[in-house]
Amino acid sequence: MEIQAYKSIFLDFLSDKITENKKLNEPKNLYDPIHYILQIGGKRIRPITTLMSCDLFGGDLKTALPAALSVEMFHNFTLIHDDIMDKASLRRGNETVHTKWDENVGILSGDALMILSYQMLEPYQGDMFKKIYTLFNKTALQICEGQQYDMDFETRNDVSLEEYIKMISFKTAVLLASSLKTGAIISKASKQDEQLIYDFGFNLGIAFQLQDDYLDAFGNENFGKKVGGDIQENKKTFLYLKTLELASEKDKEALLVLSSNKEKAESKVEKVKKLYLKYKIPELSIGEIENYTLKAFECVKQLSISNSNKDVFINLGKNLMYRDK
Amino acid sequence: MEIQAYKSIFLDFLSDKITENKKLNEPKNLYDPIHYILQIGGKRIRPITTLMSCDLFGGDLKTALPAALSVEMFHNFTLIHDDIMDKASLRRGNETVHTKWDENVGILSGDALMILSYQMLEPYQGDMFKKIYTLFNKTALQICEGQQYDMDFETRNDVSLEEYIKMISFKTAVLLASSLKTGAIISKASKQDEQLIYDFGFNLGIAFQLQDDYLDAFGNENFGKKVGGDIQENKKTFLYLKTLELASEKDKEALLVLSSNKEKAESKVEKVKKLYLKYKIPELSIGEIENYTLKAFECVKQLSISNSNKDVFINLGKNLMYRDK
Repeated sequence: MEIQAYKSIFLDFLSDKITENKKLNEPKNLYDPIHYILQIGGKRIRPITTLMSCDLFGGDLKTALPAALSVEMFHNFTLIHDDIMDKASLRRGNETVHTKWDENVGILSGDALMILSYQMLEPYQGDMFKKIYTLFNKTALQICEGQQYDMDFETRNDVSLEEYIKMISFKTAVLLASSLKTGAIISKASKQDEQLIYDFGFNLGIAFQLQDDYLDAFGNENFGKKVGGDIQENKKTFLYLKTLELASEKDKEALLVLSSNKEKAESKVEKVKKLYLKYKIPELSIGEIENYTLKAFECVKQLSISNSNKDVFINLGKNLMYRDK
Repeated sequence: MEIQAYKSIFLDFLSDKITENKKLNEPKNLYDPIHYILQIGGKRIRPITTLMSCDLFGGDLKTALPAALSVEMFHNFTLIHDDIMDKASLRRGNETVHTKWDENVGILSGDALMILSYQMLEPYQGDMFKKIYTLFNKTALQICEGQQYDMDFETRNDVSLEEYIKMISFKTAVLLASSLKTGAIISKASKQDEQLIYDFGFNLGIAFQLQDDYLDAFGNENFGKKVGGDIQENKKTFLYLKTLELASEKDKEALLVLSSNKEKAESKVEKVKKLYLKYKIPELSIGEIENYTLKAFECVKQLSISNSNKDVFINLGKNLMYRDK
């Protein structure tokens, strides 16, 4: 099945659930923001992977729909709260919840959305339910830890590359990994396959985030984000940390001075990028991205499923990684 | 067993858990606020009732300890987020989390604490786990709904007494009710006893909140809170709504004018209390509190346990309701 087909099955389910809930749910100030954020789009990559994983391991993908929605709800809960913490006014081109309503509504509707993401798991039974549940709790906590590390890093000047990889793996990779593993659990895949598909998602998630860092500085404007945004905001990305690791004392000093400047000048972006280029950071980044991508694909190769099913996972990975740069 | 005995068993368990977690948990900015709020006290009424309920229905109360901690964690998560929403700087005489750290830390550590409250339920198995889980989700959502109704009421002038009772039952009563029912589920009480003990907690919770309203206006200063705080803040309490229901057009108008005034003058408190007294609101409140308390005790009488065990529940109720006024 094509990725788009999984997506449209998920979107139909989501839309039915929202229509159903709209009739029931009061108070409106609690539930409207939830329906709003769930409907303003996004790639739906996480729920798609849950459905795909259940399907490709031989399960009935319909049985994975509640878990897929649970994962999407949890993800959207984190978006609502992260947007408050980051003071972001736009999300996917739309007003963020706390901007459209207010911060209190954002906090509380985010809380309720997290609870709904747990409630979505109620149809699962017995050991299967327990496995999904335990994985969900662990992942959810790691995501909070990742967000806290990210915030901590803003005021720290001694972040190591290792710490950075841990942060992005918690903030991004574990949810993709657990979305895939949840689908595998529902289809009763073997323990080994469960672990392999988790590792596939985990490595792919890290590759994806590293690519995000790379594209922010060296992608083209067509990609949607403003080029150099991370540099303007002095974010401690892979590019930045790798440069600090490799640069001469003088260049290191220059980068530290540039990145302590709160100005968002174009000239700052150009100067920082020049340093990145001097130390071949783009090539090193691409190498690192490829390492993680290959590690991810290696996991797929070891799965005990048909080659044509493996190809669907590989295509998902390629789809995520080789988007238009 | 005395209430204090249950409390000290719970506190020992809590303290062990925190010591254990402190060794493991990183990042500190996420977990320190959690340990902080769990340690600054409170009556621990909810976890006590879970232990008590499990014990009195014939279960081994040790098996209820994780559920008791789960309930206490969930309650403390709501405190962290409610304090942000209410811009409260003090909680139990200590700085609130968002004051001691900052709002972002408050939002995120609250989120993590909610997840921990779910994780605490992991030791339970099979149908018992499923029952606890389903009740927990339902209760958690109702608490969010109650908080949203409470915030909505601030800007509404047409709140009915019925709506008010629904709000306090969601915000306060359902958690007490579900704490008790969870203990009953763990001790494998009958379905009927489960429902009766839920209803006991539910009615007692409403009685308790109505008493809180009453004491805020007519208690004495020894009670700990500043007398008249609700009036100063124009809160739509039972006293206020009942007065609007009974007062003459002229007095109603006077109350509306007084309560649209944002000043916190003593004279305002006195004027509003005079109106309350004119319409015998204190007596009506006490009557309503007694109604709910008696309803609660009626449920206990119908339980299929020994009279001496029933007395422990009744004593808990009396302990909560007949505190020093």
